[in-house]
Amino acid sequence: MTVLKALRRRLPKEDFVYLGDTARLPYGTKSPQTVNRYALQASSKLVEQKIKALVVACNTASSFALDILAKAYDSIPVYGVVEPGADAACRIADETGILILATESTVLGGAYQKSILGKIPELPVYARACPLWVTLAEQGLYDENLASLLIEHYFEGFGGDGPKTVLLGCTHFPILLPLIDKVMAGRFAVVDSAKTTAESVANQLEAEDLLNIEGGHVSFMATDGIERFGRIGKRFLGEEVGNVLKVDL
Amino acid sequence: MTVLKALRRRLPKEDFVYLGDTARLPYGTKSPQTVNRYALQASSKLVEQKIKALVVACNTASSFALDILAKAYDSIPVYGVVEPGADAACRIADETGILILATESTVLGGAYQKSILGKIPELPVYARACPLWVTLAEQGLYDENLASLLIEHYFEGFGGDGPKTVLLGCTHFPILLPLIDKVMAGRFAVVDSAKTTAESVANQLEAEDLLNIEGGHVSFMATDGIERFGRIGKRFLGEEVGNVLKVDL
Repeated sequence: MTVLKALRRRLPKEDFVYLGDTARLPYGTKSPQTVNRYALQASSKLVEQKIKALVVACNTASSFALDILAKAYDSIPVYGVVEPGADAACRIADETGILILATESTVLGGAYQKSILGKIPELPVYARACPLWVTLAEQGLYDENLASLLIEHYFEGFGGDGPKTVLLGCTHFPILLPLIDKVMAGRFAVVDSAKTTAESVANQLEAEDLLNIEGGHVSFMATDGIERFGRIGKRFLGEEVGNVLKVDL
Repeated sequence: MTVLKALRRRLPKEDFVYLGDTARLPYGTKSPQTVNRYALQASSKLVEQKIKALVVACNTASSFALDILAKAYDSIPVYGVVEPGADAACRIADETGILILATESTVLGGAYQKSILGKIPELPVYARACPLWVTLAEQGLYDENLASLLIEHYFEGFGGDGPKTVLLGCTHFPILLPLIDKVMAGRFAVVDSAKTTAESVANQLEAEDLLNIEGGHVSFMATDGIERFGRIGKRFLGEEVGNVLKVDL
């Protein structure tokens, strides 16, 4: 939803079809094999809708399944969130390096680390899994004291001479950005992969002459819990999440 | 795993087959329809193993699917975790009532509330969803300050004249019990549904003359992430979780 929000802002005239695999969330703790299987099932549902491009708006699925999806749908471009985020982080990083904050699977999968080191081989790269942030983002930040402590928790050990650039490698985390900025008081330059993905998708659609001239419609599909999807989705998207179609994968 | 741990302790001569649906965890945020479907798939895999009784060691699945499972497998007894927990809480509760701490689905599903009010209709019953506890239990309690704050967080508003009995209605939560006791300093009598379920299963197996005379073997199946299952499972079970068979549902 944070990627859709960034895409809607960057590309207001595009139409979007969004599929949330709510029955099987989260992907961040699943094995590569299972993520690949689920990503193929979910994307085939979207491709049925005659989409012109596919955005894999999940770091775990982007880390593991992007090549497989690109091969499966060779007639449309397939965009992930890992490369744009790694690109943006490398552009602003100084010699202190980059700290990747992500889910357990994304950290263990190593796609961000690989992409960053492919661009700047000598850069110090750190990664930490932040499982409580996923729940925190979904639960909401109504208790700011608690939320602040959970933010600080995963930055522990990265003060002083540590990395000055932080890459938020989970699409849940942009909702925490204002609080991260506040709690960490500008000690880090923070790159979120939702915004960088939207920028990258916009540039690539333009380069391939695929941009819409008018439109702006969004339709939603989810595999379970329509009510919860709408309620939590609204918090992430910043607009109503209505008329959600329940689909089985 | 907390239920298995309690069962192993109470029934050391029984053999157990454990299935963890790790590919689709957690059930606590899914709809009743999806939980029912998944519970039927998972249990059919266990019934194939010629089990003599089925324990639904998940509060969400017990809340929603117990009747369906009992109907599907009418030749073996099917035990859930809700009734034993509600029973035990009612036995010790005073007039201040019972606070149910559970997942979002279990709280919204209302099975504990219904069961308790069926026994003591006038009792004050409170319920709160504790989503961060699930992640905390899986992540581990290595940072005790943070863990203590997360424990306190969900007790906020339940001081003073509030309920003195707490029912832990999620099978993740017994691992938090020592910390709850420490942080809340004995202000609550805490019932955990793992221990109460083991007691209830033991009594019923005995009543039906189904107890083993010798044995004590456990075998494990999981639907994804064998390595993670073994690693986290060991923390919950308190013994090695080895030779895990990967199964598809």
